[in-house]
Amino acid sequence: MPRDRSAGLIVIGNEILSGKVADTNSTFLARGLRELGVTLRRILVVPDELDEITAAVREFKDRYDVVFTSGGVGPTHDDVTIEGVARGLDRAVIRHPHLESLLRGFFGDKINEPRLKMADVVEGTELILEGSVNFPTVVVENIFILPGIPELFEEKFNSIRQRLGADPFHLRVIYTNRFETTIAQFLNQTMAEFPELMLGSYPKLNDPEYRVKVTLESKDRDYLQRAFARLLALLPPDAVVRTE
Amino acid sequence: MPRDRSAGLIVIGNEILSGKVADTNSTFLARGLRELGVTLRRILVVPDELDEITAAVREFKDRYDVVFTSGGVGPTHDDVTIEGVARGLDRAVIRHPHLESLLRGFFGDKINEPRLKMADVVEGTELILEGSVNFPTVVVENIFILPGIPELFEEKFNSIRQRLGADPFHLRVIYTNRFETTIAQFLNQTMAEFPELMLGSYPKLNDPEYRVKVTLESKDRDYLQRAFARLLALLPPDAVVRTE
Repeated sequence: MPRDRSAGLIVIGNEILSGKVADTNSTFLARGLRELGVTLRRILVVPDELDEITAAVREFKDRYDVVFTSGGVGPTHDDVTIEGVARGLDRAVIRHPHLESLLRGFFGDKINEPRLKMADVVEGTELILEGSVNFPTVVVENIFILPGIPELFEEKFNSIRQRLGADPFHLRVIYTNRFETTIAQFLNQTMAEFPELMLGSYPKLNDPEYRVKVTLESKDRDYLQRAFARLLALLPPDAVVRTE
Repeated sequence: MPRDRSAGLIVIGNEILSGKVADTNSTFLARGLRELGVTLRRILVVPDELDEITAAVREFKDRYDVVFTSGGVGPTHDDVTIEGVARGLDRAVIRHPHLESLLRGFFGDKINEPRLKMADVVEGTELILEGSVNFPTVVVENIFILPGIPELFEEKFNSIRQRLGADPFHLRVIYTNRFETTIAQFLNQTMAEFPELMLGSYPKLNDPEYRVKVTLESKDRDYLQRAFARLLALLPPDAVVRTE
């Protein structure tokens, strides 16, 4: 059996819920995890509120192999992710000596309490210094706590990629010029014969080339090829625009 | 007290979790609800799986005034939203006579079971025919069931806007050239004095004009103005680039 790994993402962000900022971290993480063969099972966006974060962490930590949080780790009043994760894990918040010395070295005599807050971590946190990051990435139990600023989120995710790998997904694609309602019967038939297949059907409006993009995926390459051949045989030949 | 209304969004989409498609419906809905004065409290993205949808509907329906679902309402094997909502509400799925006749009129003798599946609704569903939509929008209890294709999602949301209004949010913005760690103390002070204020702090990397965008919001315009004036008085005058 190919090796799988599940993941969940908790996005902490009033700015996303209020529509001020479009969430790009979710899309970035979804793509990155897919490349690594990790199955993202759930994305949850909650407000910058302690109870919401705590409840989400409690639910996600046992349900998924790895959990990511995005946002809420800065110096201001609304940065409550560390405290929320701590409560969700029934652990304390401590000031990390190494992070504190990094901050004191950087800020010198301009150090103050909001700045020192960025040295606060959940008890038992591991610091990850791999990659090009200036400030360590923090992980506690199976939870990676990432910043919300997209440039930093992406940099930190890239620095921990090698810790996350599973066996890859294999993908085939069929572009068809028929309506989804026309091909649904062939998709249903394929799923009946290949129940383990991940089969997606995505209609596109107003595209001159195709009407529906059909994706077939599996971690088992041979299984995928057989399902792909079967669906191609079921579809009328002139319904297929191209395949990938 | 200004009138508030809470909302939750459940996005059903393997294509989003696997990174194939960037979710634009969440951002569109977040902005649209904000304009209407409705507070979006949670966005949850789950796979195209019955148990996941059912559990989400059960959790959201009592927690929020209005709930939206996006996706999973087409004719194919992976379109299980209707069944999931039905189970979440402990209601049956029925074939709606009016929708069935619309589909039979459209498809003529090409009607088939996958096509007729699009006439299936949760028992007790109301059909909404307002706006420019070709096919009615369906709502059952407090749950609006919207299609995942962005053009259709947006069209249907616009057709039901007038059902959703609450009192508007008022917004002021301060752009500052200081680091977030420098202004955090003034934000904390403002929050201590105006605990009902919604105060956001959004650092921007590599922007020539400003370092942090600070947003202040309230449904109470006078309260907002007093908080805005207080924060401006706390900030060093040369820290403020501009305000909105």
